[in-house]
Amino acid sequence: MPKQRQGTPVSMLARQLKILDAFDAGTAFLTLSEIAERSGLPMTTTHRLVGELVEERMLERLPDRSYQLGLRLWELAARTPRAMGLREIAAPMVQLVQNQVRQHTQLGVEGGYDVVYLDRASRPDAVVNATIVGGRISLGASAIGHVLLADRPREFLAEVVASGIRRYTDSTPQTLADLVRVVQRVRQVGYAVAEGFVHPDARGMAAPICGPDGRVLAGLGVVVPSGGPVDMRIVELLRKAARGVSQQMRAAYIDPDHPHALPGAKFRVLINSSKSSMEYFADVQGDAADGVNSPEH
Amino acid sequence: MPKQRQGTPVSMLARQLKILDAFDAGTAFLTLSEIAERSGLPMTTTHRLVGELVEERMLERLPDRSYQLGLRLWELAARTPRAMGLREIAAPMVQLVQNQVRQHTQLGVEGGYDVVYLDRASRPDAVVNATIVGGRISLGASAIGHVLLADRPREFLAEVVASGIRRYTDSTPQTLADLVRVVQRVRQVGYAVAEGFVHPDARGMAAPICGPDGRVLAGLGVVVPSGGPVDMRIVELLRKAARGVSQQMRAAYIDPDHPHALPGAKFRVLINSSKSSMEYFADVQGDAADGVNSPEH
Repeated sequence: MPKQRQGTPVSMLARQLKILDAFDAGTAFLTLSEIAERSGLPMTTTHRLVGELVEERMLERLPDRSYQLGLRLWELAARTPRAMGLREIAAPMVQLVQNQVRQHTQLGVEGGYDVVYLDRASRPDAVVNATIVGGRISLGASAIGHVLLADRPREFLAEVVASGIRRYTDSTPQTLADLVRVVQRVRQVGYAVAEGFVHPDARGMAAPICGPDGRVLAGLGVVVPSGGPVDMRIVELLRKAARGVSQQMRAAYIDPDHPHALPGAKFRVLINSSKSSMEYFADVQGDAADGVNSPEH
Repeated sequence: MPKQRQGTPVSMLARQLKILDAFDAGTAFLTLSEIAERSGLPMTTTHRLVGELVEERMLERLPDRSYQLGLRLWELAARTPRAMGLREIAAPMVQLVQNQVRQHTQLGVEGGYDVVYLDRASRPDAVVNATIVGGRISLGASAIGHVLLADRPREFLAEVVASGIRRYTDSTPQTLADLVRVVQRVRQVGYAVAEGFVHPDARGMAAPICGPDGRVLAGLGVVVPSGGPVDMRIVELLRKAARGVSQQMRAAYIDPDHPHALPGAKFRVLINSSKSSMEYFADVQGDAADGVNSPEH
């Protein structure tokens, strides 16, 4: 990640994001003074920036005068190929794997030196799991992280180690040698097994999902109880499901004019609809696109 | 929506959002010059703003030098109670309704004068439907819009009419009198039926979801073939499912210290996990929260 250059003033955008980052998974509603305290910005600056963010619908003011993150963030997120696009396309496969394995099934992508979890399907009686949707775990500690790292050079692995991998258990990889050994194994076999790296009772397993450019884009994984031999039926299920998602990403995100396009490829982003609706879209394309995607009045 | 005041210079935030808004549902990847063209900003400004947005991970640069919307937008969106929070909590109910009705089932919230569709479940053989996830339709034309409007004053209805309701069919409400009549009916019966308002072959039906403060937060709806009497089993199913979502929103988003809290209420945002994982979270709360939600390194 690019570091703030020394002496460079913190940009307006960075300050606005400090405001948005004050809201976290456990804190959905904040007052103005709580925002100022959490963001470390002066109250006057906070007041002005919050006003601008409300005007642009990035923040919403509630009747009790507290604030929440705004719908516009979700609307923008709905157009991210690497997040919501992937998540929507992968959802049926995540469900399919979960139905078969009957344990936590999750989808993650690289965000800095962490896995960011985009989705998960669980069961009340599943094994212990430390992740939440929208949460992060170091690439070095997670099976999904290891399939992502298998596509990256040794220098990047060294950066992940330097960023600090939380020592969840005695088995969590801590050194570059640990991590290289784990990732080398993924390169050889094409899938990852993380035995007790995050919790002694849990085994992470993951297979790679590739993007339209053929590079590893995401990992599809399960968390199952640790111990005993690796269940190769789960490995095959994960690899098959991950290949299915890779193919659908290719179909969804390469348009016919793109240099990487396959014959017959077509945008299909987040349009999960019936045949008659697809015909409707095809008929009134320009017109309907105006209608359904027009910016706020 | 607040209008740009005359003579006020366009804020930095507004210009950054012009860049992000250049990406739409059908256009996931853009070059720098395409961004400049679509945003209407000079090339030098575009170049600088895109650089800042990439640095903050709101945009991502691809190996072919094009750009896509970044993962950070999704990470922020994952913490929006009114969008992703609601969507995750409602997902099982959307699926349940879809399994019973076997037609399009959708979830929408108010965004300006439009319904913004957060989720939908469909079938290949379902009736024609003009919406996409992340897309918009005027509050005045949609059954979900009508349940949202039932909680709003007449002045707001007049603004919706003034904003222009696209005339999809001869039945689409166009005047304030049309809209008041439709919304009055929703207030009387507690659900909405929009017969042929968007397409002659389609009937929209919707019931209200309430937020923790008791106000209407969203609508849960189906699109079924038009004609014949209204199927009251569908009405009851929608109302029951919508009540279930309302209760879960209340449980998820009111923390015990909040003035509106119910006894025993607890934050549960996007933590869709197993019992043993919930215990793990409770045990290591501060610690684990640091681990899974730490900002980018």
